[in-house]
Amino acid sequence: MSGIELKDMERIITLTTDFGLKDPYLGAMKGAILTVNPAARMVDITHMVTPGDIREGALVLKDAYAYFPPSTIHIAVVDPGVGGVRWPVLIETERFVFIGPDNGIFARALEREKVLRIVRLTEKKFFSRSISPTFHGRDIFGPVAAHLSLGTDPPAFGQVIDKLSGPVVPEHRRGEGTVVTGEVIYVDSYGNLITDIEEEDISGLREAGLEVSIRGRILEGIKETYSDAAEGALTALIGSSGRLEVAVNLGSAQKTLGTGVGEKVVVRVKGR
Amino acid sequence: MSGIELKDMERIITLTTDFGLKDPYLGAMKGAILTVNPAARMVDITHMVTPGDIREGALVLKDAYAYFPPSTIHIAVVDPGVGGVRWPVLIETERFVFIGPDNGIFARALEREKVLRIVRLTEKKFFSRSISPTFHGRDIFGPVAAHLSLGTDPPAFGQVIDKLSGPVVPEHRRGEGTVVTGEVIYVDSYGNLITDIEEEDISGLREAGLEVSIRGRILEGIKETYSDAAEGALTALIGSSGRLEVAVNLGSAQKTLGTGVGEKVVVRVKGR
Amino acid sequence: MSGIELKDMERIITLTTDFGLKDPYLGAMKGAILTVNPAARMVDITHMVTPGDIREGALVLKDAYAYFPPSTIHIAVVDPGVGGVRWPVLIETERFVFIGPDNGIFARALEREKVLRIVRLTEKKFFSRSISPTFHGRDIFGPVAAHLSLGTDPPAFGQVIDKLSGPVVPEHRRGEGTVVTGEVIYVDSYGNLITDIEEEDISGLREAGLEVSIRGRILEGIKETYSDAAEGALTALIGSSGRLEVAVNLGSAQKTLGTGVGEKVVVRVKGR
Repeated sequence: MSGIELKDMERIITLTTDFGLKDPYLGAMKGAILTVNPAARMVDITHMVTPGDIREGALVLKDAYAYFPPSTIHIAVVDPGVGGVRWPVLIETERFVFIGPDNGIFARALEREKVLRIVRLTEKKFFSRSISPTFHGRDIFGPVAAHLSLGTDPPAFGQVIDKLSGPVVPEHRRGEGTVVTGEVIYVDSYGNLITDIEEEDISGLREAGLEVSIRGRILEGIKETYSDAAEGALTALIGSSGRLEVAVNLGSAQKTLGTGVGEKVVVRVKGR
Repeated sequence: MSGIELKDMERIITLTTDFGLKDPYLGAMKGAILTVNPAARMVDITHMVTPGDIREGALVLKDAYAYFPPSTIHIAVVDPGVGGVRWPVLIETERFVFIGPDNGIFARALEREKVLRIVRLTEKKFFSRSISPTFHGRDIFGPVAAHLSLGTDPPAFGQVIDKLSGPVVPEHRRGEGTVVTGEVIYVDSYGNLITDIEEEDISGLREAGLEVSIRGRILEGIKETYSDAAEGALTALIGSSGRLEVAVNLGSAQKTLGTGVGEKVVVRVKGR
Repeated sequence: MSGIELKDMERIITLTTDFGLKDPYLGAMKGAILTVNPAARMVDITHMVTPGDIREGALVLKDAYAYFPPSTIHIAVVDPGVGGVRWPVLIETERFVFIGPDNGIFARALEREKVLRIVRLTEKKFFSRSISPTFHGRDIFGPVAAHLSLGTDPPAFGQVIDKLSGPVVPEHRRGEGTVVTGEVIYVDSYGNLITDIEEEDISGLREAGLEVSIRGRILEGIKETYSDAAEGALTALIGSSGRLEVAVNLGSAQKTLGTGVGEKVVVRVKGR
C-alpha cells in the first residue's frame, strides 16, 4: 500500500499476554527479544488478559492481529500450563506467523488463516541460554521470534508437525430460521457487551426487522452507532469487530444490565 | 537541537485515547497505522482517559503534547459521539498536526498553538477499506495519520474549513486584585490535586505572601517541591504543568482531603 | 549474538517509573527524550511501581534490566524526594548505564554490576530549558539519557564522584545450616509470592529434601513449574527471577494465604 519496505530485521513483532504491566516480566521478555535482534520493532496488543484466561486472550488476539501488515510475527503468551505438557509452537500462515504455547491461544485467530506450517519449538540453540520452566515468554517465545525476524527459516526451530494438539474453539454454530441465539463473550472497557453473534448470522433477519433480547430487555432493531440511541439508552449494534454488541450511549451496558460474559442473547424477527 | 533528522516516514505519531489497555482496540489501531506506514513510530501518551471524558482527555493532551519534537502528529480519540454528527478533522498548527474528532478534544492544546489549516477528513481513499461507524480511530484517524507521515499534503484529506465546530473550552478567567479563585481540574496517580490556577495568575500575590484555602484547610505559601513539606503534610506548590497543585509529601492529597475534581480553591494575600 | 549493530543514536533507553499510565507525565518525558534525540528507541519496563516505593522499584528493575542488550541506558524514576537533597546521577557499569535519582533505586541492580563511573548530573546545558523542581524525569533524566544516546561522554554531564550517597540495600544474609529464613518481598500480578531467598541459598537443603513454611502451611519439596501441583494447590518453586516463590496452580497464593509483602518464609530440611 505504501511502497515502504521494512528491512527483514525490522519485521514487526506483536505481544499479547496476561503478564500485566506492573511486574518485571514484560520488560524482561522485551529485553530478551532485543538481545537477539536489537532492531526488533515490538508493538503491544495487550498484557491485561485475565491471568490464565486462554479463551479471553484468544478473542483479543483475533480482533487485533489481522490489522497488522503481512509478515507480522504475533507472539501470544497466556500460558497457565507453562513448563508442563503443552508444546511451544510456531505457526506459519499465508499472511502471518504466530508463536506461543500450543494450548488454544491461537484457535480463534486461525479460524480465518490458511495454515502453511506448524513447527514444535525444540531447537535449544534459539532459546535463552538458561530456560526457566515458568517463563517461556522470555526464554523461548521471545528469542525464537527475534531469530525469525532476523531471517531464520521456520523449520530450523524444531520439528514440523501436522496439527496443533491444543484445544480448538468449538465451531461457530447458529440457530436456524428466524431465531439466532448466542451469548456475551467479552466485555470491553466501556462496558459494551460483545456477543458471539456475527453480522452475517443475522443479515437475513435484519431485512425482516428484528429484535434483540438480553436479560429480560427487548431492543428493537440494530443501530448504526452508539449516539443513534438516546443518552443512557440500551442499544444493539454491530461493533467494530463485526459482532453483535449491546451498548449504552454514554454509559455502560455491563452496569445497566448488571451482567457480563455468559449472558444469553437472542435475536429474532420482530413480533414472532 | 540534535542534528538528527528523521526521515519523513519516521515522523512521530502520538496516541491519546480512552481505549484502555485491555481490549483489542489499541492494537487494531496501531496495526492499521503500520499497514499504511510500516515504518511509523508511535508513542503512547495515555489510553486511560476516563471513557468518554473529553474534558479530561483535552487536559492530559495539553500537558504532554508540547514536549514532542516539531512536526509530531498527535492523534487523540476520546469520541463518545463516534459515527454521529461531529466531523473527523486534521488541524495543522505551526509546530504540530492534530488528528481526531471535532468535539473539543483539542481545545486546550490549541490555546497555545497557532492554527494554520483545518481539514475535514472526507477523502475515503485514505481511510480503511471498510469503515466501522463505531471505530474511527482504527479506520479513519490512524490511517490518515499514517498517510500524512508518508508525505500526503493535508488538504488532500478533504475539505479545508475555517474553524472547528466542536465546543471550545471556556476562556481562562481569573479574579481581580488580592483573591484568585479556581478549582481542582485533575487528580493524578499520586493523588496530587491539580487546579486551573496558573503560575502567572498568582505571581502578583506571591510577593505579598499568600495562603491557599481548600476544603477548610489553609496552606501558607507556595513550596518549591514536595519534600519541602514535612512527611504527611499538606502543601501547595506549582506543579510540573505550571499550575497550582495541592499535594501531600509522601502521601495523597486526594485521600487526605477526601476530595477531587471540582473542589474549590482560593488563593489570597495572607491575613486578608 | 545477531551481528546487527544499532547506530549509536538508536541505543535503547528503558524506563522504570511510578508515573502510572493515566497522567501526562510519561508522555511528556518521552517527548522530552525525542526532542533531544528523535531516533531514540524507548522500551517501558514498568510505570506501575507503587508511588514512591523505591524498594519495589529497585526490585522490578533488578529483575528486568539484565535481559537487555549491552550498552542499554536504564532510566529509573521513583523519586519521592524530587527537587530535594538527593542528587541526580548517572552510573556507568561494564554493561549498562543507569540514570535517575541517587536514592537507592539502583541499589539492587548494582549488586550484580561492576561500576566504572558515577557522575552527578550538574551540567544544565543538557537539561530542559526550564526545570520543574517536581519533574526531573522530564527535565533532567530524560534529556541526559537522550544526549548520552547521541554520544555525549558521561563525564561531560557533571562531576565524577566516588560513590553513591543513596541508601544501599542491606546485604543478602542467610541463616546457617539446615534452616533458611526469608520473607515475601514482592507479589506479582498472578498473586505469586516472591521471596528474598535465592536458589543458591537452599541448594544444599534441596538434596536433603526440604519443606517450606509460610503462614502455618507446610509445603513439601520444590516443584519445577506451576502445573506440577494440583489445580488450586499451594506449591513452592524457583521462579523465573531465581528466587523461591510460593504459588497456586491456576490460582493466587496471595488470595489463598491472605498475605503479602513481609510475610515470613522458612525453608528447612524435612522433618527437622
